[in-house]
Amino acid sequence: MDTSLNYCSQCGHPVAQKIPTGDNRLRFVCNQCETVHYQNPRIITGCLPIHGDRVLLCRRSIEPRAGLWTLPAGFLENGETTSAGAERETLEEANARVDIIDLYTLFSLPHISQVYMFFRAHLKDLNFSPGEETLETRLFHEADIPWDDLAFPVITETLRHYFRDRTTDTFDVRYQDLIVTRRLIP
Amino acid sequence: MDTSLNYCSQCGHPVAQKIPTGDNRLRFVCNQCETVHYQNPRIITGCLPIHGDRVLLCRRSIEPRAGLWTLPAGFLENGETTSAGAERETLEEANARVDIIDLYTLFSLPHISQVYMFFRAHLKDLNFSPGEETLETRLFHEADIPWDDLAFPVITETLRHYFRDRTTDTFDVRYQDLIVTRRLIP
Repeated sequence: MDTSLNYCSQCGHPVAQKIPTGDNRLRFVCNQCETVHYQNPRIITGCLPIHGDRVLLCRRSIEPRAGLWTLPAGFLENGETTSAGAERETLEEANARVDIIDLYTLFSLPHISQVYMFFRAHLKDLNFSPGEETLETRLFHEADIPWDDLAFPVITETLRHYFRDRTTDTFDVRYQDLIVTRRLIP
Repeated sequence: MDTSLNYCSQCGHPVAQKIPTGDNRLRFVCNQCETVHYQNPRIITGCLPIHGDRVLLCRRSIEPRAGLWTLPAGFLENGETTSAGAERETLEEANARVDIIDLYTLFSLPHISQVYMFFRAHLKDLNFSPGEETLETRLFHEADIPWDDLAFPVITETLRHYFRDRTTDTFDVRYQDLIVTRRLIP
């Protein structure tokens, strides 16, 4: 599950897998300076950009899932709030500016050690266009969502929740584990 | 904000800070094998363990904030869902078994590159006791919460939301940025 490490990033000596004192898991530990190199899940944060009764999707220009449709999202950076990361990714992938409404969906994907979260957001204007990792940006009505060409299950789930919740105008935050026994990403 | 790296964990050669092609941030990049060493925020996951009209708090035996009261929580591990991590931390810190109800609070702490989340949970039984990082475990009524001796703002906020929400029995998930210009942890 962890990425294999060979050398200590602090002193450059070889590391080995050990259970540190007071711990109960194998970690990569430096044989020389004894630094423990913890590895932890990463957060992917993004937006569900809304304009009237349409939502903005991006068609991916990069692998995995190149050519398929997604919501703008990416890895949260150090020093950034999850909502600021979602805004930044929306700007980078769709050149779109948004006003965040609130957190909406949160998914645990333990098989790839990732946590995804999406924020509902209003598009500030219609000046959007593909960023470097995007082939095409387009607003979709519910009836036109390309359900068979969505890039990831977290996108399908978020859109599915949204269109259902919209009928009652109540958007409770949804927490969901997406546990698969093989990688969904080829 | 990032931890300083000196050597490549893959090949052991020195690294330098550079902006990789197609990126817009300084990363530690290996001078030899060109591996980019990304650093990202970590997730702390925990429980608000409930029994009737009382909640379970733990008094910390370790720094930071040794001697102060907290909710059981800790770093999410690779291969783990955020709710499973919350359950595990509750077992490790309070020897307490819980049934998770739902996600409750989520906090971004950009100054320390952490995301905290707490799940409401029912205690399965009253067989709890201090784990290794805990001096004392105790159930508290609202009137007895040691507000001045809580370890972290995320604990205060989660308890404050809970006791307010309990009056209406509606526990909406709360997302909150806790932005401080200096470290709260000495």
